[in-house]
Amino acid sequence: MRIGIYGYGNLGRGVEAAAKYNPDCEIVGVFTRRDPDAVKTLTGIPVYSSENILDYKDKIDVLIICGGSATDLPEMTPSLAKSFNVIDSFDTHARIPEHFARVDEAAKASRKLALISAGWDPGLFSIARLYASAVLPEGKDYTFWGRGISQGHSDAIRRIDGVLDARQYTVPVPEALSAVRAGECPELKTREKHKRECYVVAEDGADLARIEKEIKEMPNYFADYDTTVEFISMDELRRDHRGMPHGGSVIRNGKLGLSGESTCTIEYSLKLDSNPQFTASTILAYARAIYKLSLRGEAGCKTVFDIAPADLSPLSGEEIRAHLL
Amino acid sequence: MRIGIYGYGNLGRGVEAAAKYNPDCEIVGVFTRRDPDAVKTLTGIPVYSSENILDYKDKIDVLIICGGSATDLPEMTPSLAKSFNVIDSFDTHARIPEHFARVDEAAKASRKLALISAGWDPGLFSIARLYASAVLPEGKDYTFWGRGISQGHSDAIRRIDGVLDARQYTVPVPEALSAVRAGECPELKTREKHKRECYVVAEDGADLARIEKEIKEMPNYFADYDTTVEFISMDELRRDHRGMPHGGSVIRNGKLGLSGESTCTIEYSLKLDSNPQFTASTILAYARAIYKLSLRGEAGCKTVFDIAPADLSPLSGEEIRAHLL
Repeated sequence: MRIGIYGYGNLGRGVEAAAKYNPDCEIVGVFTRRDPDAVKTLTGIPVYSSENILDYKDKIDVLIICGGSATDLPEMTPSLAKSFNVIDSFDTHARIPEHFARVDEAAKASRKLALISAGWDPGLFSIARLYASAVLPEGKDYTFWGRGISQGHSDAIRRIDGVLDARQYTVPVPEALSAVRAGECPELKTREKHKRECYVVAEDGADLARIEKEIKEMPNYFADYDTTVEFISMDELRRDHRGMPHGGSVIRNGKLGLSGESTCTIEYSLKLDSNPQFTASTILAYARAIYKLSLRGEAGCKTVFDIAPADLSPLSGEEIRAHLL
Repeated sequence: MRIGIYGYGNLGRGVEAAAKYNPDCEIVGVFTRRDPDAVKTLTGIPVYSSENILDYKDKIDVLIICGGSATDLPEMTPSLAKSFNVIDSFDTHARIPEHFARVDEAAKASRKLALISAGWDPGLFSIARLYASAVLPEGKDYTFWGRGISQGHSDAIRRIDGVLDARQYTVPVPEALSAVRAGECPELKTREKHKRECYVVAEDGADLARIEKEIKEMPNYFADYDTTVEFISMDELRRDHRGMPHGGSVIRNGKLGLSGESTCTIEYSLKLDSNPQFTASTILAYARAIYKLSLRGEAGCKTVFDIAPADLSPLSGEEIRAHLL
């Protein structure tokens, strides 16, 4: 399976690193909108200009598009699906139906395959929600994120005047998590599910009280949460907050039995030292599935819901039945 | 979707109860090898003799075969796959390839669909192992069962001379579970993974020391485990050990990053008040998938690995993309 990486940020580098663990997968190259000579890859794979991508039409089995969901992917994925089997990690939940429709139209016209919204949420967490609701139709599910770094919230803090750098951790409220794990089905407000911990490096002489107030009152990002702000030095930030850990849990509590007398709890949880590396590794498994489906002549846009587990594995049907069932 | 229940023990009753939570599913009837007049169903659905099952060939979309894996299913599933779409919960791991081959041959010849080994292990736990190994190729996974009742081990104790009744709980060893959850990859012997708790009602005047010794030294069942035996009264057994709880966890720890510097932990866990009710509810979701596949003209034997998550849901593709992705 010959893989192209389109875009070379954290996710693109994650795909390059994850290929090491997937011997059936060969990285053809990185395609960048920047000057290719200015981009140095982790493992020495070649870098090409994204302008020349069409020259690689017959040299790439699946193109992994590592762009942002806000403006990159809505353009890139439908456009590249005209010439390649593609996969992206589009994660703007509310705009998924619209993105799906545009990519599906492009991929059906070109008889290529596309898979959107791969990763862990959307992705593995979505599947966990679907399996759980299918096997426990009467119930309620909860998704908790963290403890982990939210890139979007960290960026929001960095845009505040007087802030040099920042890291924001999303943290599940322990009492909420315990109650749900114990089989309860509480109604939880936003504030009762997650809290936000901010580590901020301010400019010398900046008004710390004002920065803290601006963070805590920021609508959508922080105002609906219990937020803590701690000012630290740049050295502390680099020493203690270097990684990009994340994770979380999808938990569903459901009732079974003639009179609903049995409670069942299903939990799917992730604890990740590196969010982009794990996302990339998951995307590579879905790239394998897309490649298999393309060999069977399928076309159009898929999501993780449409992919049978067997197609993610490099093993044969006989092997997985004998060893994993 | 019209469902037939073939065999009416704990699992068959579980399917009957689970239908209540699945409005798209209608139970046509129970088919039994016993005298139908002697079988009373929970919800009043009709009971027929299994001898007349072929009369219902056009009235049943999927037949759920609720028999034992030792002798029932190896005969029943291939035989019934000649006339029906069938689903079973065959759980003798070592004999799955052979069972699959026989059922596949029968179902392909009749152009029917079959799915074997549905439930939670084999079943949802198998899927958890497959997803985890696909997204974390370099790693090690662990399956812990319990705390929960093992029917097979309880039966083994009941066969000992002087025993009136018994319940055996399989319990993960807490230290092992904690180590694996913390991202470690220990090599664990059988004894280090699970312990066995036995609650036994003995006949009046029975030799308790002999019974305890026979349990603890029983090969395969108990000899390789740390086993505790507690003698209780029949009243205590009925009061405190009435249910059939079970559950467990599939945990995989894997490495990512160029030099394996990132650890990721994936855990899928179940906590079930009633093992047979949950198994039945899971089987019903897979019956829905088999029905959908049959409408698309597919045939042959499948396992949970071959079923895309979307096919388990009563919702449309648009609905699941909008609400669960």
